[in-house]
Amino acid sequence: MVQSGDDLATSISEALTAEKIKIMDGDVIVVSQKVISKAEGLLVDISTIKPSTKAKLLSKRTRKDSRLIELILRDSPQLIRADRKALIVRRKNGSICLNAGVDKSNVKGRNIYSRLPADADDTADELRLGLEELSGCRLGVIIGDTYSRPFRVGQAEFAIGVSGIEPVIDYRGLKDLYGYKLRFKSVALADEIAAAAELVIGQGAERIPVAIIRGLTRLNPSDKHGLSKKLLLGRRIDLFKDMI
Amino acid sequence: MVQSGDDLATSISEALTAEKIKIMDGDVIVVSQKVISKAEGLLVDISTIKPSTKAKLLSKRTRKDSRLIELILRDSPQLIRADRKALIVRRKNGSICLNAGVDKSNVKGRNIYSRLPADADDTADELRLGLEELSGCRLGVIIGDTYSRPFRVGQAEFAIGVSGIEPVIDYRGLKDLYGYKLRFKSVALADEIAAAAELVIGQGAERIPVAIIRGLTRLNPSDKHGLSKKLLLGRRIDLFKDMI
Repeated sequence: MVQSGDDLATSISEALTAEKIKIMDGDVIVVSQKVISKAEGLLVDISTIKPSTKAKLLSKRTRKDSRLIELILRDSPQLIRADRKALIVRRKNGSICLNAGVDKSNVKGRNIYSRLPADADDTADELRLGLEELSGCRLGVIIGDTYSRPFRVGQAEFAIGVSGIEPVIDYRGLKDLYGYKLRFKSVALADEIAAAAELVIGQGAERIPVAIIRGLTRLNPSDKHGLSKKLLLGRRIDLFKDMI
Repeated sequence: MVQSGDDLATSISEALTAEKIKIMDGDVIVVSQKVISKAEGLLVDISTIKPSTKAKLLSKRTRKDSRLIELILRDSPQLIRADRKALIVRRKNGSICLNAGVDKSNVKGRNIYSRLPADADDTADELRLGLEELSGCRLGVIIGDTYSRPFRVGQAEFAIGVSGIEPVIDYRGLKDLYGYKLRFKSVALADEIAAAAELVIGQGAERIPVAIIRGLTRLNPSDKHGLSKKLLLGRRIDLFKDMI
């Protein structure tokens, strides 16, 4: 169980040693958002929050606790939908999600909710550098979070923080099996890696917060910062704009 | 290379034997849509197609070949977006996708395009029964296809055909680590399995059309037909309706 202030690189390294698992060059380490939020001390007791007038108003509209709304608003520059069915916002990094990712599951205490890391790419960078130093290997790190999606039933894991690898592979201009030049294809590899990891990590009760993805041949290393932003599609160019 | 009329269960079994891989109980076999379309003879030479007036009209609007449009319309009861940027439709099964899934990549011949299977769940059922008979094991089969998504850059693999396993795990009413009852969580396991398989299968040039997902502990067996429909969210209850 991860506590506030824990150094996750050290905790993960120790857990791997205990399990006799050795990190290898090219491994992608996927970590569930919830343990990141716990390690970064992002659990909030909403009974300590004084809701604003706006939060109180939205509380009536959404039938959610006004203190919870206040907490959500702190992470949400833009409100997109607020009614009895859903509170959907755009977070500072541009991602669109339910309740700004503020979440009750697997958090101890009746009034305690977890917030998302302020910048999950920074968190991923720090964790990668720590794990690379401890292991001597070149790694990728992905922070995964569970998202509801348009069109599809059920939630799926997306990459909300990425470090060390390009999150998208662009196939445009490359040739297919028969020499036909691909015009549209690009693959959200980081989201697929996060989804693959969720198969092992599960939704909490399994107590597995970390998965290692090994043997991927399609990884493109990157030392850039803010890589998860490459996965966010601007509204202007979203083909599904106004379509749902 | 799969040809029209090939029995995929037999082809896959033979390939596994050649690779000395033994199928096991609980394995999920993920097959790429493209080989399904090839085996089912769903490659169409658009130079044999006479476009309708509607197709010709849409051709001007979208700047796509009117014969290609005609082919797309055959699989599309509902047109959702048609302009220079995208042709988005709803297919008979209710799924919303670009170009009705009609696709040029990894198909031989300048004018040859592949259509999606008419009912990918039927295809998955048939393949599962064939593979179960040949292997003596209880299996799951998923047919994966690459989808563009709202909000996110890059495409990701979704499950368009499912047989033998429940595609969604519903956690609602179950308890988390601390006994808190989960109210919203359900996981689109079949989509995550398809995404995990894409990491291995790739986009064609790798010539790997099949992946085996083994050791999943969260599978719920099902003998129902039409399982992929459980992944399709009706517009009425889509939380992101009108939001993009």
